[in-house]
Amino acid sequence: MKKGLFITIEGPDGAGKTTQIDNIERYFAERGRTVVRTREPGGTSIGEKLRAVLLDPANTEMSPITEMLIYAAARAQHVAEKIRPAIDRGDVVICDRFMDSSIAYQGYGRGLGECVRDVNLIAVDGVLPDITFLMDLDPAKGLARIAANRGTEDRLEREALDFHYRIYEGFLALCDEPGTAMVRIDADRTVEEIKADIYAKLDEIVTG
Amino acid sequence: MKKGLFITIEGPDGAGKTTQIDNIERYFAERGRTVVRTREPGGTSIGEKLRAVLLDPANTEMSPITEMLIYAAARAQHVAEKIRPAIDRGDVVICDRFMDSSIAYQGYGRGLGECVRDVNLIAVDGVLPDITFLMDLDPAKGLARIAANRGTEDRLEREALDFHYRIYEGFLALCDEPGTAMVRIDADRTVEEIKADIYAKLDEIVTG
Repeated sequence: MKKGLFITIEGPDGAGKTTQIDNIERYFAERGRTVVRTREPGGTSIGEKLRAVLLDPANTEMSPITEMLIYAAARAQHVAEKIRPAIDRGDVVICDRFMDSSIAYQGYGRGLGECVRDVNLIAVDGVLPDITFLMDLDPAKGLARIAANRGTEDRLEREALDFHYRIYEGFLALCDEPGTAMVRIDADRTVEEIKADIYAKLDEIVTG
Repeated sequence: MKKGLFITIEGPDGAGKTTQIDNIERYFAERGRTVVRTREPGGTSIGEKLRAVLLDPANTEMSPITEMLIYAAARAQHVAEKIRPAIDRGDVVICDRFMDSSIAYQGYGRGLGECVRDVNLIAVDGVLPDITFLMDLDPAKGLARIAANRGTEDRLEREALDFHYRIYEGFLALCDEPGTAMVRIDADRTVEEIKADIYAKLDEIVTG
């Protein structure tokens, strides 16, 4: 059976992930591949219910570990119900954020550390990305882009800049790990320049 | 600050856990200790919502790993919101089933293996029982007791006997681990004999 491809894309908000996901989808569509585009919780009914628990404003007392485990549970279901079956069918799955986001946001940003990776490796049950594109953009620039698009500046976002830098540091550390599937893409360039870099990497994967 | 005690009780249904929890509660009440009696999900609002996801009959496609992570998330919240604060106040917490149940039921019974312990050690965040009483009863005897009390025999329970023996094997393995907090109590005796054994162990803890 032809095995599919699993591609994830990571990076701060404002780094242009959605535009490049469009480009990755087009790349494979032009080659006649079936593309499944997803993001967590991935439209699974169980994932939506877990998301409702996470977002319920009544749950002010949720511990950071509880939150991390609920995200991991939703991811486990997303993998079992949607991502793994698509890969097994031979499709190309493109996922907007995956377990690296949890490691960066919860492990580095919230300070939960290595346990986030341990739990998520159990949650994904061997389904790891073939390649992960990290849209590398300084967090302050990402936040400025978002503010410019919205025409306002968000006080909370500015105050939380330290938090965003810890997350950024987490992504860079993941990039530097031996055997990592993460490829760093300089996102502080034009859409076309970024696309050219990504397409060159996809050519390597498709022909390799 | 006086540190409390954390006592858990494990074992198959029909082994008489509830009766002995009553006895343990009485033991400490007679000594003027404040006792918090609990069981998962422990009455936390977040735990109840997670339980509703677990029990929703619409969720037929839930993967075993998702289920295990949701149970762990509910446990993490139970620990953070109820068990740890009570221990920190100096109370005696008695919990009907705790992480050993997950290891036995999901690790051994469902075959998920060691990852169940890894996830649960993260969930409980260092809050481990001072002592765990394992009500040791052959699963077939436990099921027979339940059936006798109910006056019926449950076909599913009989068919699942292999499953119950795997769980039982898990509990016995946990008892035999070096440094375990688990004490095996022969539950195939009279209530008074069992109580005498448990009280002797509690005397050791309280005076030791």
